[in-house]
Amino acid sequence: MKNKAIGIDLGGTETKIGLVNGDGDILKKEIISTDVEDGFRKVILKVGMTVLEMLKKENISKNEILGIGIGSPGSVDRNTGIVLFSPNFPDWQYAPLTEYLEEITNIDTFVENDANAFALGEWAFGKHRRCKNIIGLTLGTGVGGGVIINDQLLVGANGFASELGHVIVQPEGPLCGCGSHGCIESYASAPNIVRQAKEYFKKFPDSYIFSLGKITAKDVFDAAKKGESVATLVLEKVTTILAIAISNYIHIFNPEYVIIGGGVSKAGSILLDPIVEKTPRYLWPSFKNTFNIELSNLIEDAGIKGSASIVYFRNK
Amino acid sequence: MKNKAIGIDLGGTETKIGLVNGDGDILKKEIISTDVEDGFRKVILKVGMTVLEMLKKENISKNEILGIGIGSPGSVDRNTGIVLFSPNFPDWQYAPLTEYLEEITNIDTFVENDANAFALGEWAFGKHRRCKNIIGLTLGTGVGGGVIINDQLLVGANGFASELGHVIVQPEGPLCGCGSHGCIESYASAPNIVRQAKEYFKKFPDSYIFSLGKITAKDVFDAAKKGESVATLVLEKVTTILAIAISNYIHIFNPEYVIIGGGVSKAGSILLDPIVEKTPRYLWPSFKNTFNIELSNLIEDAGIKGSASIVYFRNK
Repeated sequence: MKNKAIGIDLGGTETKIGLVNGDGDILKKEIISTDVEDGFRKVILKVGMTVLEMLKKENISKNEILGIGIGSPGSVDRNTGIVLFSPNFPDWQYAPLTEYLEEITNIDTFVENDANAFALGEWAFGKHRRCKNIIGLTLGTGVGGGVIINDQLLVGANGFASELGHVIVQPEGPLCGCGSHGCIESYASAPNIVRQAKEYFKKFPDSYIFSLGKITAKDVFDAAKKGESVATLVLEKVTTILAIAISNYIHIFNPEYVIIGGGVSKAGSILLDPIVEKTPRYLWPSFKNTFNIELSNLIEDAGIKGSASIVYFRNK
Repeated sequence: MKNKAIGIDLGGTETKIGLVNGDGDILKKEIISTDVEDGFRKVILKVGMTVLEMLKKENISKNEILGIGIGSPGSVDRNTGIVLFSPNFPDWQYAPLTEYLEEITNIDTFVENDANAFALGEWAFGKHRRCKNIIGLTLGTGVGGGVIINDQLLVGANGFASELGHVIVQPEGPLCGCGSHGCIESYASAPNIVRQAKEYFKKFPDSYIFSLGKITAKDVFDAAKKGESVATLVLEKVTTILAIAISNYIHIFNPEYVIIGGGVSKAGSILLDPIVEKTPRYLWPSFKNTFNIELSNLIEDAGIKGSASIVYFRNK
């Protein structure tokens, strides 16, 4: 009976591979290095071989596996399974990801952009599983989005939809990596949180945070928890922008849940609380009590579970 | 054979009622005054009687009518057919619109917010009929939105979705009627176009547009066509905001068409051309050639056709 899935969370430095059942439990997990410099085919061969070995070791037949799901960074054609381009994988241009992995494993394989996989993971295995309308927002190196509307993944005409991180909320704002100004990502990604802290150096050179040397987004949140002034100013701006962004998503989608994930979300309540407090300021009263904003509770395994959920979603 | 629908375009001063076939042709049309001061029940009784008289005069049996569709301004519960509130209809609070109209006509009746009806009309009867992914934007007294995703109307968890006019694109922008600052509506609705022109009075008191007395949005567009400076400045701002807004919708929805309607859209190419030119500046290159931005070609009958399309959509 086909009642398990393989979830593959493809990362620039390591790849997590998990065997996941229909309840979202991870039965087995392997982490391998992603040797990007070896090129597309070697990377995928190693991933495929790891999947086959895992099944063999666990004494699980391919007949029990519904499919393999991969959450991939970058621009992905979800219908053909081809990665069009991916910033951290230089030679992955029009790389036939699912085709090659199917060739190696002989298991049906499906791919989604990693932010879509995150949203699907919340829909399938999160706290509010099987809730019909969910917005997933991932705050990490970039800001990504995935949207479930009435139990369907929002993909758009070409599969490019739900680029929630590149909604412009401040046209005269900072330059974003994408070329526009004032996208949500230009405030709320980890590197941009650090950038905003550094911009205060001239004004507050003696601030504690500048004594740390290399600053990370985590440092900013930790310093804010201690009431450090530069970190508090940055956090105030970041959470205001996220509140405006989330109010926009709520006016557009009228979701039941907005779930925030990604590395930055590990900051916890110091990030979440001000967002929850500020968002209603920008919303129509009619939206009161229609939504909740929460942090993902899948945390470390969100990638594997999200990727596995692709399989369950495609087979529902 | 049930192959016709009644479309009712409910307005604050007049109500248009049309008999519409499955191709979107209007077979018969009546325009009656909406005597709002008479109260909800009298207004709807008059509408219902007009429908019944129209069928009688045209010698059409109720058996040929698939249903009645109503596009209503304000906040509408599309499932129960109740109007929660509507700015121009003071006593329509929790008004059982479809129930009462069904009681009078004995014909199945469906209601949608008027901007959703506009989007459905474009999907059913517009130039690109049966295109799967359409964003409809109505620029009038307010700015409304309706979204068709993969042949489905976006409604959200409570039916409140697609408030595209209240996406914030400039948090320090002008106060909007909804209480937020810098919503798209606070720039691109007819009254706000006029407001922006008036704000130039101090700077350019001798400008031609201020010799007109009472200024309308149409005056602003007409003056811009003649190269008048204040009108040109206003139009530059309005089309930039709309280009940013539309690029946001495209990043979010990846639609095939963005169709602009409502009274303001009658301005024509002086409104459309700068939007078409500027929108790609804010978009990722991957979205190139994935979308078109156009004005609605349903114009005067968009309301009736949009309302009739509700019936075809609910029965598809």
